[in-house]
Amino acid sequence: MNEFDAIESLFLPLSFNHEGAMGLKDDVAQFNDIIISTDTLVENTHFRKEDSSYSIGQKLIRVNVSDIIAKGAFPIAGFLNISWNNERGDKGLVEFANGLKDALIECANKMPIIGGDTTKIDGPIVISLTIFGKPINKLVKRHNAKTNDLICLSGNIGDAKIGLEALNNAENIEFANAISHYQTPKIPKLQIANIISKYANSSLDISDGLLGDAMKLMPDSFHNYEIDFEKIPLSDEVKKYLEKNGYDFDNILKTLSFGDDYQSLFTIDEVNKNDLIEMANSISQKIYFIGKVRKSDKPILKIANVKHDIGDLPKSYSHNFTA
Amino acid sequence: MNEFDAIESLFLPLSFNHEGAMGLKDDVAQFNDIIISTDTLVENTHFRKEDSSYSIGQKLIRVNVSDIIAKGAFPIAGFLNISWNNERGDKGLVEFANGLKDALIECANKMPIIGGDTTKIDGPIVISLTIFGKPINKLVKRHNAKTNDLICLSGNIGDAKIGLEALNNAENIEFANAISHYQTPKIPKLQIANIISKYANSSLDISDGLLGDAMKLMPDSFHNYEIDFEKIPLSDEVKKYLEKNGYDFDNILKTLSFGDDYQSLFTIDEVNKNDLIEMANSISQKIYFIGKVRKSDKPILKIANVKHDIGDLPKSYSHNFTA
Repeated sequence: MNEFDAIESLFLPLSFNHEGAMGLKDDVAQFNDIIISTDTLVENTHFRKEDSSYSIGQKLIRVNVSDIIAKGAFPIAGFLNISWNNERGDKGLVEFANGLKDALIECANKMPIIGGDTTKIDGPIVISLTIFGKPINKLVKRHNAKTNDLICLSGNIGDAKIGLEALNNAENIEFANAISHYQTPKIPKLQIANIISKYANSSLDISDGLLGDAMKLMPDSFHNYEIDFEKIPLSDEVKKYLEKNGYDFDNILKTLSFGDDYQSLFTIDEVNKNDLIEMANSISQKIYFIGKVRKSDKPILKIANVKHDIGDLPKSYSHNFTA
Repeated sequence: MNEFDAIESLFLPLSFNHEGAMGLKDDVAQFNDIIISTDTLVENTHFRKEDSSYSIGQKLIRVNVSDIIAKGAFPIAGFLNISWNNERGDKGLVEFANGLKDALIECANKMPIIGGDTTKIDGPIVISLTIFGKPINKLVKRHNAKTNDLICLSGNIGDAKIGLEALNNAENIEFANAISHYQTPKIPKLQIANIISKYANSSLDISDGLLGDAMKLMPDSFHNYEIDFEKIPLSDEVKKYLEKNGYDFDNILKTLSFGDDYQSLFTIDEVNKNDLIEMANSISQKIYFIGKVRKSDKPILKIANVKHDIGDLPKSYSHNFTA
């Protein structure tokens, strides 16, 4: 059973039709006037046994904050649940707390951790963060893109994939920035929440791959995206990787589908483009316009002016649940 | 480093002095007009590998709901984070969801699960629930007992300890009810929240042992409890266990200190005793008056009219954190 089947068949009935659960189909839930997002990271699945405890503290905050700001909200408080093992021990725990602290200061405006639970585990460590966010205006939903909306992206794609591969193949020097992104993901500025809140029709943070996650913005199966590969921002290291391994369709598809990017992806009405650029410039946040929402039954990836129908291709990093 | 040291030295600084964190010293945090409680259960620590997936679903809900009602609040929504393994697999996941569902209906007035995260783990499974509760009136805090308050308890103590021992020693038939309590803890009725909200000066749910947790109700080191062993309700099986193993001070102390009881423990002004009894009767909830809060520098356990100073004895099940 994969994660989506498990959610649909087993956990959705436990929402007892509560409106705030939003059908368990969004990144966040709504509760009174706040939104809530939660992410669990498991050793050997979401990070490596070799990754420092400091970096996983950083990562835990960043991957959760990215969910909240992508919905046009500010993070306001968090809950921490950790199951820690003897291998990382007390020394690792101190480093982990330092990683959390630095990330809270760097990316979350000192969002307070107001509670949690600490347990020990004889196995891979498990760390969860549950964040409360305050929407600036209304909550920006997922499946709500409009016909002809522009698809907007907040930053580079693909570094986490390259970083993880480099770590596994000991190419540490060649891809140092990508490795850094894998371990301490760069996320948009907090203030992007203002932009998204004001202009976005639909929005999410990219955690399971750009091409798969972009599908989730579509309101129905009669709408699809047309994304222009040349407009997607890539770091120098990702370009180098593609040059090294082949700039072919297959490599491009895999690079855009891996996930762990944690950038905001959202759609806006084209009339708002210039105002949005001005607002983004004022906070020094880059926004890239990578494609459009079309009335069409197939998602398209355009590479060097050739339109590839990628409807039947795998385009998400699948978190297979119980295999 | 034990759990308390880790919280004090590493995680308290991450609360950035947020008032709702309450110094990370209570069972719950406060956020706007809601309270939040979270508990993580780890396989081989909080439940056995052999325990059914159904029973751990039941347990996860019950141990969390008991936190909320003990604070004079009703559970209103929950978040679920699970890391599941292949050993329990899809079949176990379905049973787990059934356990959650039945417990939500039986003990939590169909509190909706409105979000969460599902991951897989190659190791012991980890399950967390974060519950939002709505205080009926004000939040009832922990360290707030008054001089001469009566100490009130909602039900039997010691069954979880006997049940776990019986499971480990294959005495399944002799202690069937205790085993059932270990696997599917009996918790007070939801409506006990009304009683606690109305009358309690201090309150918590007993998870780390009656005698240790009772210390946490005391406002300062000049106040202590005097608890009368004969007034503590014990099941027939716990009595049988004590008869079998010796009704001596050591066995009594261990039975009252193990934890996993999940009953409400709270203190009230004696003038409210009769009103409280009337209210408890009206919802068929038993309340036992097991002792008093005294101006004294030593906690006392009275057994057969002999006062034992238990100040220096271990009286809590210690969740040692990283050992």
